[in-house]
Order: sequence, then structure tokens, then C-alpha cells
Amino acid sequence: MSWLTATYLIDAQADEIEARAQALALEQSVECPLEAIGDRRVLDEIVARVDAIVPVAPGRYRVDVKIAVETTGGEPAQFMNMIFGNCSLWEFVRLVDLKLPAELAARFPGPTHGIPGIRTLLGASERALTSTALKPQGVPVAELARLCEIFARGGVDIIKDDHGIADQPYSPFVDRLHACQRVVHEVTQKTGRPVFYAPNLTGTPRVLRERAQIARSAGIRVVLIAPMLVGIPAFVELVEDFPEFVYLAHPAGGGGRIDPVLLFGSLFRLFGADAVIFTNYGGRFAYPPEACKALASAARKPWDLLRPALPVPAGGMLLERVDELLDFYGKDTMLLIGGNLLVARDALLERTREYVAKVVHHGSAGIGVHA
Amino acid sequence: MSWLTATYLIDAQADEIEARAQALALEQSVECPLEAIGDRRVLDEIVARVDAIVPVAPGRYRVDVKIAVETTGGEPAQFMNMIFGNCSLWEFVRLVDLKLPAELAARFPGPTHGIPGIRTLLGASERALTSTALKPQGVPVAELARLCEIFARGGVDIIKDDHGIADQPYSPFVDRLHACQRVVHEVTQKTGRPVFYAPNLTGTPRVLRERAQIARSAGIRVVLIAPMLVGIPAFVELVEDFPEFVYLAHPAGGGGRIDPVLLFGSLFRLFGADAVIFTNYGGRFAYPPEACKALASAARKPWDLLRPALPVPAGGMLLERVDELLDFYGKDTMLLIGGNLLVARDALLERTREYVAKVVHHGSAGIGVHA
Repeated sequence: MSWLTATYLIDAQADEIEARAQALALEQSVECPLEAIGDRRVLDEIVARVDAIVPVAPGRYRVDVKIAVETTGGEPAQFMNMIFGNCSLWEFVRLVDLKLPAELAARFPGPTHGIPGIRTLLGASERALTSTALKPQGVPVAELARLCEIFARGGVDIIKDDHGIADQPYSPFVDRLHACQRVVHEVTQKTGRPVFYAPNLTGTPRVLRERAQIARSAGIRVVLIAPMLVGIPAFVELVEDFPEFVYLAHPAGGGGRIDPVLLFGSLFRLFGADAVIFTNYGGRFAYPPEACKALASAARKPWDLLRPALPVPAGGMLLERVDELLDFYGKDTMLLIGGNLLVARDALLERTREYVAKVVHHGSAGIGVHA
Repeated sequence: MSWLTATYLIDAQADEIEARAQALALEQSVECPLEAIGDRRVLDEIVARVDAIVPVAPGRYRVDVKIAVETTGGEPAQFMNMIFGNCSLWEFVRLVDLKLPAELAARFPGPTHGIPGIRTLLGASERALTSTALKPQGVPVAELARLCEIFARGGVDIIKDDHGIADQPYSPFVDRLHACQRVVHEVTQKTGRPVFYAPNLTGTPRVLRERAQIARSAGIRVVLIAPMLVGIPAFVELVEDFPEFVYLAHPAGGGGRIDPVLLFGSLFRLFGADAVIFTNYGGRFAYPPEACKALASAARKPWDLLRPALPVPAGGMLLERVDELLDFYGKDTMLLIGGNLLVARDALLERTREYVAKVVHHGSAGIGVHA
């Protein structure tokens, strides 16, 4: 018999926290009053149990709940159901942490490549990494390919679709993929330096699979995907069926009552993200610096047999902040700067080169370009 | 050129709401500063625009944003991305309403059966409907089948798996499905009264499809599914590929910053739910009565060509409240009472009959059993 521990923040008055914690344990397991249960084994081995209640702020408690591993069936949708199914509907509950026995973590793919695989692919064993985004959505394929070429010539490691670019009439998936892949291939041929285009994979499961197949046939090695939009189970299946891809996981649609450190740093990694994009502090989004640091740590920390995932801070980042951000996150990081390059317009190539140089030379006193 | 309108509640001070609303419009469309955009068509036809800002409470505003329909690509994952992708990450934003042009709504399946189809299937043209749940998870298949038989003999219309019952070793999907389906078939043969077992469909997309195929082969007509757990795109694909099923949509995993009235009442319906389960007021969950009424109305109201979906209040409901609830929701409703029947233990059949009689006779002064 084996248990996972899920930790929740529960808002409650002192005289109601016990009842709320107990109600959560029932809701997340048997979903009925204990007096309706006549089976001893269910009471002993299936009913979730409150393990600890610790006050953390006035009217707020940190509650550990032990949930039977057997109830997850080892399946991603059911696993999410057991840790945050019905109780997600309670406004006063947030899921903030998880401890999984190794045999449960082993049921999920984890990063196929992770940081070491990405470094090998990019031929960059030590330095911090660079990425950027093709945007805005709405421009035609030729314009996206033109931007892609400039970014590639500028030395960016990974050039991804903006996550809003799907299969709209103005830049259909197949045309875009081939145009951008051709461009990065040509630049790599010319410069000998690896550069990768990462198309955005989205759609219903069948469409997702068709697009992945097209990407595979075109020799794509890195893809962008938003697990909370395509659905976690579809993401897991794709990781298992297309293990050659490096998966950049995008957080879109992931807002809610699961703590972002847990969702993007740990769960996305568990489900197979090789790199996790998250919204950086001080940009367009509101995470505090310590949450960003915790998220990056969760992605990289030793965790059973799971490879470390690459943290990718993003969201309204400025070129001027590269040194600050690399000091903050360390070199096992890929920066993602998009809009702040594009504002350069006609000087995009120069600004891209400046971005790349800043990252590559960071902390190295100017030596070792593309080390 | 066609636009949808998404309405958000945004928490902000008076002097920052304009900027927040404008930032949301950019985030939900082009995701970059306007000065990075050189393409006139993108500025005119792709950039989302703030349409109205109305104060609704101190520090809170209702903001209408027009989003270009073209950006959704007519695909469910990308549609969700455009209405609540990146902006879901902002703690100060909630998505509360949507207005879709008819041609966009027509891109999604909507209920294949809806209220009229469910009434035809059940042979119940007028009265309110009954459902219950097999629980707790953890008991063996034989016990679930025993409960299923009692519920069926007691006259319940639809007997569903508890949504925590997936494919765990203690009650494997295939065995359970066949055992419960056999039971309801036998009771129907004996009584001539239609009764349906609704297995819970979950899993990664391929597994989901395999299980749906097994359900189809076994003659299953009603299924339970939690769209936020399997993923909305997988749900939509299933609805399109298995149109013979009546889909009971379960809200598990759906907590977050999308208003439940919108998510469960309107979006689940749009994506193909024939019936929407939601947590009733005064039970284990915290929705106020007016939200429950609004949710039921959203599910049933006239909406382009979409059939009405059946509201199914649930969650800690008591037999004693049947009259109150049917007065509140009206007869185009299916009640879902689970645990409160099971507490009867040895008197389960009697209590089930009492439940069914209360619903069937409600408002009819005792005449017209199973009208």
C-alpha cells in the first residue's frame, strides 16, 4: 500500500479547518459520507487521510493529505483528478505541493531530453541558451519566415512560433512549418551552427498527432506545446509517441488554483516537458522573484530518475535585463525574448545579435562565443 | 471580418484599469507591443480591442474585449487560448462571459441529443429525471454491480460511475462496464422501463477512444466524462466520433478563474455536453443559489442552433430536498443523489424508490408515475 502526499492551502477559520480538511480528504477519494462505506478495505486503503494541518497565516492553513496511489490508476487524467478534481471547485483551496513515491513518478514519461539533451542538440555544453518567438500572429507565412531567418542569422538557438499561431488561414501550419524549417536548415548549412525552429502543436488529439507526424517528416526536433490547452493526457501521449521532439511547454491556460511553481515547474516536467516556459518577474506578469526562482529550481532539482527540465523565463522581457536575469537564474536557463527584439524593426538583425552576444558572453569576460 | 466578445472581471485601481484592459487585449491577440507591428491588416483585423469598461464594485471592473474570430482557427484548444490563454495567468482576471457569432458557435459540436434526446431515450417526456452514482471507488466490480442493480430496480433513470472510478485494479473498466451494463439490461428486460448505466470515460486520447469503442460495442448509450480532466479538445473529438452517446459532463478539474456559469453552463454545452453536472447550492460546495440558477439557465437557453443541455445539480444533495430543488430548478432537470442514498445501506432499495417517487410525483399530486 502506497500513498502520495498532496499539500493544499485552505482558507478557513480556526474552528472550521479540521472539518474542511477532512471534507477535502473525502472529496478527493471516496466522495461520500464515511457512514455509507461498509467495506473495511476501502476505509483502510482508499479513503484519503489528513496528515498535517499547519497554520501559515491568519485564516490560512497548509494541509497535507495522503491519497492512495492505487486510486490514480497510473493515468494522467485520473492522477490529476485524485489530486485536484472536485476540490478544484472550492474557491478556498489551492494545490501547492506534491510528494510522489518513486513508482508513481515512474508511470509518467518525464523529460526525454531535459537539459543535457537540449545542450547536446544545440552543441552548447555550458552557456545559457537563447530563444525567441515569431510574432505577431496575423502576418503571412513569408513574413514569419523572414523573421525566422533574421533570428537564425542573429544566432538565436531556438525560434518558436508565438503560442497564438495555430493553423489560421493567414499562416497555415503546414506552409509555415516548411517555410521556417527550410530557413533554419539553410542558415545551419551556411554557418555550421545548429539553430532550431519550434512549431506550435495544437489541435484535437487526432489533429495534434497529424501535425506531429508532419513535423517529424520535416525533420523538426523542437516543438512548442501548451499542455493545459491541448490537455495533459494528450500531451503525455504525444511525448510517448514522439520521443524525438524536445518539448517546450507553454503555460497558456494554466492559470487557476494550482500553484504555478508546482504546475509549471514540477507537473509539466513530470508529464514530459523538456523545457518549461514561465512568466518572469518584473515583466507583463505578476509572479514575485522568489516564485520564479522556486519554479526554476523545481524544474532542475534532482527527482528520482527524471531528467532536469530547462527553465525558460519569458513574458515582456527586455534585452537590458539579460545580465540581471542570468545572474538570477544561472546558466542552466534559456531566455525567451520576443517582442523586445521585434520593436527594433529594421534593426532586428543587429538587436538579435546583441541579445545573443549578451547571453553567450555573460560572466565570461567576452571569451568563448557559442561555447 | 468577425469578432467575438469575451467579458472579464478585472481587479484594478481606477487609474490602472485602462492600462490593464489594454494589456489584456494585446496579450490575448498579438502578444507584443503595438510598436513592434508593421502590418496594417494585423493592427486593423487581428489586434483585440477593449470595447467597454464598466465598474461593478470598488476596485473591480467588467471589461468587454473584442477578439477576432479568425484567430481562433475554429479549433477548441486555440479557441480557449484566445479567450483565456495567457491572461488566465493573471490572478486579477476572471473570464465571466462570451458572445460568439453564430458561425463560430457552429464550428463546435454542441449537444447531439440535449434535453429532447435524453427525454426520448428515457421515455420521459415531461417529468424531472433521476440519476445516482456507483461509489465509493475501491469496492470490487461485484459490489458496484450489486448497487447498480438495486438502483435500477429502484427506478433511477441513469446510474453513473463515480467520477473517481477509472480503470483501477479494484474495478477494471472492462469488467465493470460489462457487469453493470448486464444488470441494467436485465432490469429493463424485466420491467420494460429504460434504465441506463453511464461508465466513466477517462484516459489519454488513445485510451479514451479504446474505452469508448468498448462502450459502443457493449451497447452503452450514456457516458460520464470530465472535459477538464481529459482535456476539452479530446472531449470535442469524442463527441464528434461517438455521436450516439449521451454525454454527462462532470466538472472535476474545472475550478479556476473561468466563471462556473460560463464554463459548465455554456462552454461544456458548446463543446458537446448533453447534460452538465454542477455542484448544487447548500451542499458540499459553495456556489450561491443565483449562480446555480444562472448555470441551469445557460445550459437550457435558446442559443443559435445548439440544443439545450440538461442541468444536473449534484454534490452532497439530500433526499429531503427533492421538492425544494425541483421547485427551484423546474422539471427540465436531472437530480443526482449518490451518497445520501448509500447511507441507507441495507435499506438502499427502499430509499432509492423513495427518491424516484419524490421526483416522479413532484408537483403532480401523486398521479402519472414515470409519465
